[in-house]
Amino acid sequence: MKNGLTTTTIRTMADVWEAYRDELEGVEDQVRKNVDSTVALVNTVAAHILSSGGKRIRPLLLLLCARLCGYTAKDDLILGSLVEFIHTATLLHDDVVDDADLRRGRRTARKVWGNQISILVGDYLYSKAICKIVGFQNQGINEVLSEACRKMAEGEVLQLYYNGNPLITESEYLRIVEHKTAGLIAASCRIGAIVGEAPFEQQAALFRFGQHIGIAFQLADDTLDYVANGDRLGKTLGQDLRQGRATLPLLHLLQHCSAEDKQMIKDRMETRTLNEADLLRLLSLMKDYGSIVYAMERAREFVVAAKRDLVSFEDTPPKRALSVVADYMVNRDR
Amino acid sequence: MKNGLTTTTIRTMADVWEAYRDELEGVEDQVRKNVDSTVALVNTVAAHILSSGGKRIRPLLLLLCARLCGYTAKDDLILGSLVEFIHTATLLHDDVVDDADLRRGRRTARKVWGNQISILVGDYLYSKAICKIVGFQNQGINEVLSEACRKMAEGEVLQLYYNGNPLITESEYLRIVEHKTAGLIAASCRIGAIVGEAPFEQQAALFRFGQHIGIAFQLADDTLDYVANGDRLGKTLGQDLRQGRATLPLLHLLQHCSAEDKQMIKDRMETRTLNEADLLRLLSLMKDYGSIVYAMERAREFVVAAKRDLVSFEDTPPKRALSVVADYMVNRDR
Repeated sequence: MKNGLTTTTIRTMADVWEAYRDELEGVEDQVRKNVDSTVALVNTVAAHILSSGGKRIRPLLLLLCARLCGYTAKDDLILGSLVEFIHTATLLHDDVVDDADLRRGRRTARKVWGNQISILVGDYLYSKAICKIVGFQNQGINEVLSEACRKMAEGEVLQLYYNGNPLITESEYLRIVEHKTAGLIAASCRIGAIVGEAPFEQQAALFRFGQHIGIAFQLADDTLDYVANGDRLGKTLGQDLRQGRATLPLLHLLQHCSAEDKQMIKDRMETRTLNEADLLRLLSLMKDYGSIVYAMERAREFVVAAKRDLVSFEDTPPKRALSVVADYMVNRDR
Repeated sequence: MKNGLTTTTIRTMADVWEAYRDELEGVEDQVRKNVDSTVALVNTVAAHILSSGGKRIRPLLLLLCARLCGYTAKDDLILGSLVEFIHTATLLHDDVVDDADLRRGRRTARKVWGNQISILVGDYLYSKAICKIVGFQNQGINEVLSEACRKMAEGEVLQLYYNGNPLITESEYLRIVEHKTAGLIAASCRIGAIVGEAPFEQQAALFRFGQHIGIAFQLADDTLDYVANGDRLGKTLGQDLRQGRATLPLLHLLQHCSAEDKQMIKDRMETRTLNEADLLRLLSLMKDYGSIVYAMERAREFVVAAKRDLVSFEDTPPKRALSVVADYMVNRDR
């Protein structure tokens, strides 16, 4: 935390990045330091995806929670980098599972080096992170993180199971979101609390905070997939539907639209095709029935819940920063 | 260990299976018990591969090492089942990486449910095992196992890196084998020693024992890929070469055969094709130059080294069983 920044001066994400610039640079140093396999190709592939412009939200949350609980040393930066390794491992596998060619505007590792390498370097990053984490000899951290990883894998399988199926309920959809996205974010927050030696209730509160913002993050992401902003039009919108995934705005629409439109949506989900005319019709229907508004409103409810999880903490710069991060979950470009 | 069986009555693998039948059934119980995801599809896929006739060599080694070190309770059976989970996770990913349709005569999970499910259920089995293992709160076990997993992933990447390349040296080949195969077998043995609270030197000796038999296992496996026995002919032989992998018998042949034959082998590795005539020529060359004999001799040297690792242990039924398992590594059908 830079000198001179106080609770009142942290208002935007830019303020947060600036206030914790040194710590986040420490995370980057750790990320680079841990790309140290004796197998050169592992390092090349790992560096490709690790330097592809990820926002390091999980390390940021981990260190903010640690500092909220009074921690001042540097283990949180190392642990943050290891959580980022795990997150990156899941991205490598996701890109294979999704047949993705681009991630953040760059060619995916699977596109450059192939699916095989992506699967195996994903395995490497995950096992490397576990290796380093057990070195901390902290039972709480071991348990929280391994449990989060198990849930992530379950969430991914569940998502694949419901692929192409428009009959998924909102509660099953939320279960997927909670497993595949919120779990690791919640674990990051709790690990921060553990490093900060916070009492159990505070650990639990920060875990819930992470769950809530994690769900908000995914709901907003899924909603933005149907929201045009400037240059994002045509084929870049509606990607979830093209992959056979029914997300919250679509689930809302399916519950309210005509039988005919419902059939059209089901067809498109099954065939995983969505031409320009279909897309425009879909966006117009979502507007008419308030599906976008509904989904963003649900996302915001989770942000509100997240902020409630922070009430027992004193008003300090890290608390203010966590609150800004919570808002950011639903106010991002995709 | 069944009553009445003594050091002198354990002579074959059948004797070992019989002597430790109850313990191995305990391992099976644990395997079944841990297939308990709330996501039904995860359990279906996990059960498919876990019940596909694996010999449970790693759990067997773990429990034999534990009993060699005087352990009599049941944690070794649980830990054995978890090591088997990790091994199974690697098989699921290997089958995707290798485009494999069959494993032990059955359709692979990727063939039945697709690559995506295989990748994700592999991730699940691995993370589930780590979850349960950290529950033992044993730092030694955490470190040994996570390190083995990291090395396995590195070994797999290294193997892929050298794919299609006939210029790999024998020492690089052995490095791959040591990482991808011997690491988890060695870890299984050491975990047995840790559970048995053996002194550090004995833990290290059993780790080396595992490394040596693990390498012997893979060398023998790679050699059997070129050895016809009865019904294994034609397309089932030479699969490693068809996948672009140069293994020990081929590396030996490449060092001794004519420039013309060398070129033929390089061509086949690059194009990943091997017709019946090529194969017969290759097998005949390997016979002429003693490549099969050489590779099996190298495998046997590792078995001899493994047995030397056991000298400091008293002559008991588990020691006798470990010695039988060591011999079995080079006396199996593939």
